[in-house]
Amino acid sequence: MKVEIGHGSGGKLTRELIENLFLKYFSFPELTSLQDASYLEINSRKIAMTTDSYVVRPYFFPGGDIGKLSISGTINDLTVSGAVPEFISVGFILEEGLAFSDLEKIVKSMADTAKKAGIKIAAGDTKVVEKGKCDGLYVNTTGIGKVVKPLSPKFAKPGDLVIVTGFIGDHGIAISLAREEFEVETGVLSDCAPLNSLLVPLLDIEGLRWMRDPTRGGLATVLIEFSEISGLGVKLYEEKIPVREEVRFVCDMLGYDPLYLANEGKAVVIVDKKDAEVILEKLRSHALGKNAEIIGEVTDEINDVRLITSIGGERRLELLEEDPLPRIC
Amino acid sequence: MKVEIGHGSGGKLTRELIENLFLKYFSFPELTSLQDASYLEINSRKIAMTTDSYVVRPYFFPGGDIGKLSISGTINDLTVSGAVPEFISVGFILEEGLAFSDLEKIVKSMADTAKKAGIKIAAGDTKVVEKGKCDGLYVNTTGIGKVVKPLSPKFAKPGDLVIVTGFIGDHGIAISLAREEFEVETGVLSDCAPLNSLLVPLLDIEGLRWMRDPTRGGLATVLIEFSEISGLGVKLYEEKIPVREEVRFVCDMLGYDPLYLANEGKAVVIVDKKDAEVILEKLRSHALGKNAEIIGEVTDEINDVRLITSIGGERRLELLEEDPLPRIC
Repeated sequence: MKVEIGHGSGGKLTRELIENLFLKYFSFPELTSLQDASYLEINSRKIAMTTDSYVVRPYFFPGGDIGKLSISGTINDLTVSGAVPEFISVGFILEEGLAFSDLEKIVKSMADTAKKAGIKIAAGDTKVVEKGKCDGLYVNTTGIGKVVKPLSPKFAKPGDLVIVTGFIGDHGIAISLAREEFEVETGVLSDCAPLNSLLVPLLDIEGLRWMRDPTRGGLATVLIEFSEISGLGVKLYEEKIPVREEVRFVCDMLGYDPLYLANEGKAVVIVDKKDAEVILEKLRSHALGKNAEIIGEVTDEINDVRLITSIGGERRLELLEEDPLPRIC
Repeated sequence: MKVEIGHGSGGKLTRELIENLFLKYFSFPELTSLQDASYLEINSRKIAMTTDSYVVRPYFFPGGDIGKLSISGTINDLTVSGAVPEFISVGFILEEGLAFSDLEKIVKSMADTAKKAGIKIAAGDTKVVEKGKCDGLYVNTTGIGKVVKPLSPKFAKPGDLVIVTGFIGDHGIAISLAREEFEVETGVLSDCAPLNSLLVPLLDIEGLRWMRDPTRGGLATVLIEFSEISGLGVKLYEEKIPVREEVRFVCDMLGYDPLYLANEGKAVVIVDKKDAEVILEKLRSHALGKNAEIIGEVTDEINDVRLITSIGGERRLELLEEDPLPRIC
């Protein structure tokens, strides 16, 4: 058996890899498997830790670059886990022949993103491989932060509401079009952004159950995983889900489903109904959450994520087998 | 200007990259630059953090593999920084077409190494890139641990002694010969091993000043960096430095200098003279330190690392410009 592109998709094959290989040998801490960050105890204090390697192609794209993406992604993984991001390490794998000017732009972008988000780059490493053994550069970012409020799909209850913090699919479409395989111009920018200033203030709200940033595999994959871990279902209302006209247009043209497209500056937030309005208001008062919407609710149908379509039909959402857009992050 | 293989050597070009690019944009914490791990404060407790990407070629080699190497390397970076390693994250970049059986061996090797060393693998990530955009697999490991005793070259004083914990150059030679570019059989194994059980017990000893694992760039590079940061010099006695006969033989044949070859299971330890014997004894009572030797002393000659050769000559050691063995780790 060999590794396939789909093993990096965040979908069904990635899941198989995690369950059949990594969980066989690694015993991750409690609440950790299939989550974005792990809860650890060090010096008798709770911290969260997360790691991601970034192989996005191309490494410059409308709305960002691999530097901004990697720092944002790590900040977001910590934040949606109920932690305040504090420190990030950066590991570069550079391809021989990479232009220094490109590397400098990316390093600057990482520093700017970290500074704006108020987190520190704490450690670094650089390796160089021969031409043809990389694709410009790959970046690993690993982050740690203080846990403020541990979150888990297991804390959700039927009747909870599902909020998304804004338009979905922007990152996927921006990357797809940046590859110049299609001659389409839309002006859609990647949404990649650090979400700690948007989401950390929600951690004080009692009714907050769980958050996740819908990156690889998109909104659908994240909610399917939520459903599997919580043992609950989700009902989504298609007409409530914010999708830009241009994104919908490209999806129709190229056969993508926006529900499965990667986002890099959005979160799904599951909340107790009683606090939904407060949370929605908080989100909408922030530039990165102004298009937040309640898009669905948690049900007691085990392992069932269902889309109520605009014309009133129903469609069960499943993990994707194939990766519609490899190397999206 | 373009990235060259030498930028990953750990030598002069790596230094330039760090000083001219990374330090320009990233402001690393105090005592951190050019060190193996950073000291951070989280929840008002001191922790150390370190990151490394591993691109070693081949990924299986006599004495180890990229899995054992990466876990050991991260454990060692924390330990030599005076910290007790606790948690490691693992980020994989896999090449499409990599045999699952190879991946499984490597994952198992990581799990075994972590278990033996008593540290936990806390978080993971996997990305897949197309065939021809990687070289089998690359691994990032990032580790955190509790700081027991902060160490710095700045704590050293003239008259301190320099100890190495065993034979140098084994890893470099094992990798070099594993590449099958030369038809030499020596039986030399990589020394890659986690050193926490050897070195953590030294942290209680008052006279311990500084430690470092001489990986990329070898013993010479590590001592040159020590000298630059401390503002002191080092005098090394060639005849005291433990080098295996077979390693010396291959070095003579291929034109390597063992002082610049990578080690992955050795440490250089700088100690107050008064505690040198105690430390040497502790090291020698452990399987991984049984060939430890006092190999030199700290002098007050600013920025001067000098080798006293076996025949009584003197040679000043300088950072290498070229990388004698790229992708050694």
